[in-house]
Amino acid sequence: VLADRYRHTRAATLALCAPLAVEDHVVQSMPDASPAKWHLGHTTWFFETFVLSRRAGHRPFDPRLGFLFNSYYEAVGARGARDARGLCSRPTVDEVHAYRRHVDARVLESIDALDAAVLVLGLAHEEQHQELLLTDLKHALSCNPLEPVYRAGLEVAPEGDAPPLRFVERRGGLVEIGDAGAGFAFDHERPRHRTFLTPHRLATRLVTAGEYQAFLDDGGYRRPELWLSDGWAARTAAGWQAPLYWARRSDGWWTFTLGGARRLSPAEPLAHVSYYEADAYARWAGARLPTEAEWECAASDGNCGTLSQLFGVRWQWTASPYVPYPGYRAPAGALGEYNGKFMCNQMVLRGSSTATPPGHARPSYRNFFPPAARWQMTGIRLAADA
Amino acid sequence: VLADRYRHTRAATLALCAPLAVEDHVVQSMPDASPAKWHLGHTTWFFETFVLSRRAGHRPFDPRLGFLFNSYYEAVGARGARDARGLCSRPTVDEVHAYRRHVDARVLESIDALDAAVLVLGLAHEEQHQELLLTDLKHALSCNPLEPVYRAGLEVAPEGDAPPLRFVERRGGLVEIGDAGAGFAFDHERPRHRTFLTPHRLATRLVTAGEYQAFLDDGGYRRPELWLSDGWAARTAAGWQAPLYWARRSDGWWTFTLGGARRLSPAEPLAHVSYYEADAYARWAGARLPTEAEWECAASDGNCGTLSQLFGVRWQWTASPYVPYPGYRAPAGALGEYNGKFMCNQMVLRGSSTATPPGHARPSYRNFFPPAARWQMTGIRLAADA
Amino acid sequence: VLADRYRHTRAATLALCAPLAVEDHVVQSMPDASPAKWHLGHTTWFFETFVLSRRAGHRPFDPRLGFLFNSYYEAVGARGARDARGLCSRPTVDEVHAYRRHVDARVLESIDALDAAVLVLGLAHEEQHQELLLTDLKHALSCNPLEPVYRAGLEVAPEGDAPPLRFVERRGGLVEIGDAGAGFAFDHERPRHRTFLTPHRLATRLVTAGEYQAFLDDGGYRRPELWLSDGWAARTAAGWQAPLYWARRSDGWWTFTLGGARRLSPAEPLAHVSYYEADAYARWAGARLPTEAEWECAASDGNCGTLSQLFGVRWQWTASPYVPYPGYRAPAGALGEYNGKFMCNQMVLRGSSTATPPGHARPSYRNFFPPAARWQMTGIRLAADA
Amino acid sequence: VLADRYRHTRAATLALCAPLAVEDHVVQSMPDASPAKWHLGHTTWFFETFVLSRRAGHRPFDPRLGFLFNSYYEAVGARGARDARGLCSRPTVDEVHAYRRHVDARVLESIDALDAAVLVLGLAHEEQHQELLLTDLKHALSCNPLEPVYRAGLEVAPEGDAPPLRFVERRGGLVEIGDAGAGFAFDHERPRHRTFLTPHRLATRLVTAGEYQAFLDDGGYRRPELWLSDGWAARTAAGWQAPLYWARRSDGWWTFTLGGARRLSPAEPLAHVSYYEADAYARWAGARLPTEAEWECAASDGNCGTLSQLFGVRWQWTASPYVPYPGYRAPAGALGEYNGKFMCNQMVLRGSSTATPPGHARPSYRNFFPPAARWQMTGIRLAADA
Repeated sequence: VLADRYRHTRAATLALCAPLAVEDHVVQSMPDASPAKWHLGHTTWFFETFVLSRRAGHRPFDPRLGFLFNSYYEAVGARGARDARGLCSRPTVDEVHAYRRHVDARVLESIDALDAAVLVLGLAHEEQHQELLLTDLKHALSCNPLEPVYRAGLEVAPEGDAPPLRFVERRGGLVEIGDAGAGFAFDHERPRHRTFLTPHRLATRLVTAGEYQAFLDDGGYRRPELWLSDGWAARTAAGWQAPLYWARRSDGWWTFTLGGARRLSPAEPLAHVSYYEADAYARWAGARLPTEAEWECAASDGNCGTLSQLFGVRWQWTASPYVPYPGYRAPAGALGEYNGKFMCNQMVLRGSSTATPPGHARPSYRNFFPPAARWQMTGIRLAADA
Repeated sequence: VLADRYRHTRAATLALCAPLAVEDHVVQSMPDASPAKWHLGHTTWFFETFVLSRRAGHRPFDPRLGFLFNSYYEAVGARGARDARGLCSRPTVDEVHAYRRHVDARVLESIDALDAAVLVLGLAHEEQHQELLLTDLKHALSCNPLEPVYRAGLEVAPEGDAPPLRFVERRGGLVEIGDAGAGFAFDHERPRHRTFLTPHRLATRLVTAGEYQAFLDDGGYRRPELWLSDGWAARTAAGWQAPLYWARRSDGWWTFTLGGARRLSPAEPLAHVSYYEADAYARWAGARLPTEAEWECAASDGNCGTLSQLFGVRWQWTASPYVPYPGYRAPAGALGEYNGKFMCNQMVLRGSSTATPPGHARPSYRNFFPPAARWQMTGIRLAADA
Repeated sequence: VLADRYRHTRAATLALCAPLAVEDHVVQSMPDASPAKWHLGHTTWFFETFVLSRRAGHRPFDPRLGFLFNSYYEAVGARGARDARGLCSRPTVDEVHAYRRHVDARVLESIDALDAAVLVLGLAHEEQHQELLLTDLKHALSCNPLEPVYRAGLEVAPEGDAPPLRFVERRGGLVEIGDAGAGFAFDHERPRHRTFLTPHRLATRLVTAGEYQAFLDDGGYRRPELWLSDGWAARTAAGWQAPLYWARRSDGWWTFTLGGARRLSPAEPLAHVSYYEADAYARWAGARLPTEAEWECAASDGNCGTLSQLFGVRWQWTASPYVPYPGYRAPAGALGEYNGKFMCNQMVLRGSSTATPPGHARPSYRNFFPPAARWQMTGIRLAADA
Repeated sequence: VLADRYRHTRAATLALCAPLAVEDHVVQSMPDASPAKWHLGHTTWFFETFVLSRRAGHRPFDPRLGFLFNSYYEAVGARGARDARGLCSRPTVDEVHAYRRHVDARVLESIDALDAAVLVLGLAHEEQHQELLLTDLKHALSCNPLEPVYRAGLEVAPEGDAPPLRFVERRGGLVEIGDAGAGFAFDHERPRHRTFLTPHRLATRLVTAGEYQAFLDDGGYRRPELWLSDGWAARTAAGWQAPLYWARRSDGWWTFTLGGARRLSPAEPLAHVSYYEADAYARWAGARLPTEAEWECAASDGNCGTLSQLFGVRWQWTASPYVPYPGYRAPAGALGEYNGKFMCNQMVLRGSSTATPPGHARPSYRNFFPPAARWQMTGIRLAADA
């Protein structure tokens, strides 16, 4: 059954690349993003390095690929510069596919003898890169004046209006959050621990593009009093005037999607805002962002049915900086670099998005990005003090 | 009595400038720092803008000074570029002193009719700038190959050894932190609120320079596994190899102080480390940094006598990102920019330092700086899980 | 016959791309370089824009390609950012080939009716891009840790020793330089004009890698007195310690070539030095670089047979800044941007290189690059005052 | 008599500083500029280093000043970072004056035994720094929103109109330029040598501010076809929309001068343009800039009386890159760094300005600055082909 999951997850990555031209695999459009070819290689390198190479007699497919496909694991050796991934035309896409096939064969032929926990981690890791592959690709295609379509029919605008925005009351008190131990979870979801909540309110749905447009129309990007100091500086340095991918044309706002450029729909859930924009919008709206504990508590609740769009629509910025849970300890060795060392200057996001592989997320899931990041499928759920 | 406090605080600022040459008032050695002349002017501008100018009939001393001496209050009008404060040779030091005298006279002649709360805030503000004036000046003098002495006898090394490092056990449970309302406190110290602590241990004294040297000697600055990812990047970009002001000479480590350059003493409390270095040191030492709640709880405790060096020695980096307390609301108007808009990408420091004016700090006091800042009198108190 | 030349030149570009993987066409390794795909498109765009589109009834192949494939002609409309050429995965290589075929067919079907002078200019332009395609590709492949081979057998090291370095005496006096009008020449080779030379001496061959190594071994890269001020600054900022593509390995100096990485041969003509390095080497050698007039005079001389390696080996940095000849006038319109606007902060190179298409250069030919450029096939011929 | 000249020149430097506040001596407003205090010290260091220290038994005033006041002489030892001169509040102005007095006394007490040639060079050097002191100061004061006045009555606008712009015809042919040896000249004015001129025309006076305004009004700063490529890039990066110090106010164009801010006069000679702007203006005007040989030839001419404003008004950008004259050799030792190493990426200016000390310049005088420099008193004299 682990073999089936392995085959399924690895095949899903290839399926995401099916619509791509060879050329589309090569481009790195900014340091934060990676070429599709790199994602294909890096996820494979993970299995080779952390699973296969720990077995006696393992011989690497090509020892030089470690340098190219190591992302950030300092403990595993030298690695290429983060912003130079788009400079490597070789190995070719075909060669990377051969690498994948080779590693898959080695894994599958001896899967029962391999470290199952690390294999499962590798599959969760591959799912994370499936989402990154899509968002990185979206960014790369958006840089092209020809506005290429990745796959028609993706990210279509919803029909009809969004339901009215309502808030549900949530009690305060001492609660428990964090992984309860039933299935796989990342290290940073543990330990489960108590935390104290004050009474608050949570919005039943996400902020729409139309609502955000009202913020724009009200001078949202020209009023420093609505912004955090660092947010205002980021806005100014980068020249933000709207969410990423929004473009004002003569007939109104358009947006760029994996299905091509199209008109923005007021009813669609807002996407591609930074934490700074989310925070400014919430302040403008007389509200705030939820903390991660408030969000998780609500999402784990038996009767959270009143809250919609928790998963599968947009990652939701929380007001919580990404810090370790009380008692957290990073695993020993290179895998300890997975999460712990990023616990500074990043904000937690909760939920999942349309780009997240099905089954990947859960109520205790913690995503995190720097507050200026906009190229993920990030949106806003409002909260407020009771 | 408020008049006395006003006179006392304003005079203390001048006393800090007494040892300075006129030329020393002009220099800005980095964007984060300000010239002494600017501190003299800005603290005066604060009283003129937020106290005097709110009275009918007020005429500004010189309307152009608002542009020069406004620090960051976007709501009060245009302001000079943060990193261009060292370009203004005018107004001269004498002219700034005249500005101070003018504003002081106006304040004192009608002090009973002025907004006492804002006056008290202005005095707390001036005390904060007294510390900044010293730390900015220290940085400026340190850039000078002549290594000028600000005032002999400052920052002398202690005699004798530091006491052994011990940890005291602290219980967990639901506690209250935040200003309890007895005296002045900044907005961000409120509201007092409940939070949940897990059992933990706190070091009874601060880390010494000698202990930190062991970290250095053990390759602390060459081992990425000890550092946060952003910390390692900061170390690499800035070329950090030791705390700020440390210099390796043929006869060992020296440090630059307000009393001049001198040999480092192993017993002296470590100073001038960033959060990144504090965090890496703690990891190397098998410990962690305390949270601000743990720190405040201990400092407010009736029997915290077992903990030394809480105040008046070094600001102590905590593991807590600077975020609003539950229910925090920034004041309306320009004074609302005092703290709230900085609540992102900064870490809380607790305690106070040798450069802090006496009586300025308290257990609920929250200082905050970006994690890479090193020019403040920042040190380390270790903590650990129980 | 023009049609034959057209077919020949266009086919030669494709032949250069024959050894490339699709992925190799996409990479831009630095702002100065362009992807192979861009060269294929841009040379085609030149014919479409300056030849075909001037005819009545012309319909562009795809109007959006102008934006992508316009290099710097401000007068022809908007253009993509110079350093973003590697971000465009589309049009694909196949689509660019289709564009080439389309334009070639349009040109060839009506070649007698087209502007022959601009066609000939377009072919000279394409030949320039053939050389750039090779040098840009060399740079891109050199950035890849896998050290891919473009084509085995290229840039092989010579066997045997270089002949001894000799200088020939050259008379001074009033001479004429510039294009004499027999065949095609670029605008900046004209007008032919008189200039005055002082007696001087010219080296009979180029500086070898072995001779340059002696400069290195003598501390050439550590002695500021040998360098121009801007050169020393460039060396320091970029960390130059040897010519581009040189790498010191345990068994001596290696170099990267289009035929792969190989040991450096002392006898091979030095390549990939900047003007700054050429100038510093000449100073170290007690010599200087020739002026472009000295070089051209010698190259045009009936009995310059004593001078070897004038053409087809390395471009030779001259001591002459790139300025207009007396009476030079840039052509009207967008083609006037070809050369004239670059006449500042660049140095003239004379001769041609192993990467220059046969027949492209001539004695009056003026190549030019900024003094810090190193990725061209640039070498050194020494000169000296008589 | 050399003693008199020494006293006179040294006193002139002090006289320039007489209107300054102490604070004005400290500021460095950009890396290209230096604080007045630094000029006072550096010119003194020059005499100490190149004159006094070459005598047996010399003891430096303070050995640490060499580091602070060495400008760029790599051969004389370490030196402070060019852009950190404004960070040094010490030595104070008084201390620098003491240093001057000390060196002056040492020089004057033994002046007959000192190297007269280097002394004369040192005085010419001090005169150059007198002009730089003024232009650097002007830049520093211009950065201050208070717009301080250096000295009332300086740079007043002329009354009346400028005479009509005329061109005089100049013959071509073989001419001699360079220092003829009668008095002091810098190394780079030699050797006198022959060069060939084509017939040309020279404007009888400089371009006025009013004429330049017509260029502005005609879209001069928005039309790339008028600019060199590097010039257009400089304009864009720096946001140039007019010459330095011009400011558009509600009542027309103003300019900042050493005498304060005032309305621009159409009749005044244009100042504070870069080479790029001078070149673009000339192209717009259907003319070009003169070469340095054309300029010198005219200025040395017995009957150049038809040409006005050659000296004492504005430095005049020429079309000539700054390169060595044929046969030029830099002097041995550190003084060889005076000029030779800057012979790249700079343009020659001829004449002199209102800020040049009387008697400093001559027909063979070569000034040079990078083409983007604007803070000198630089203007335009037009030329044209015959």
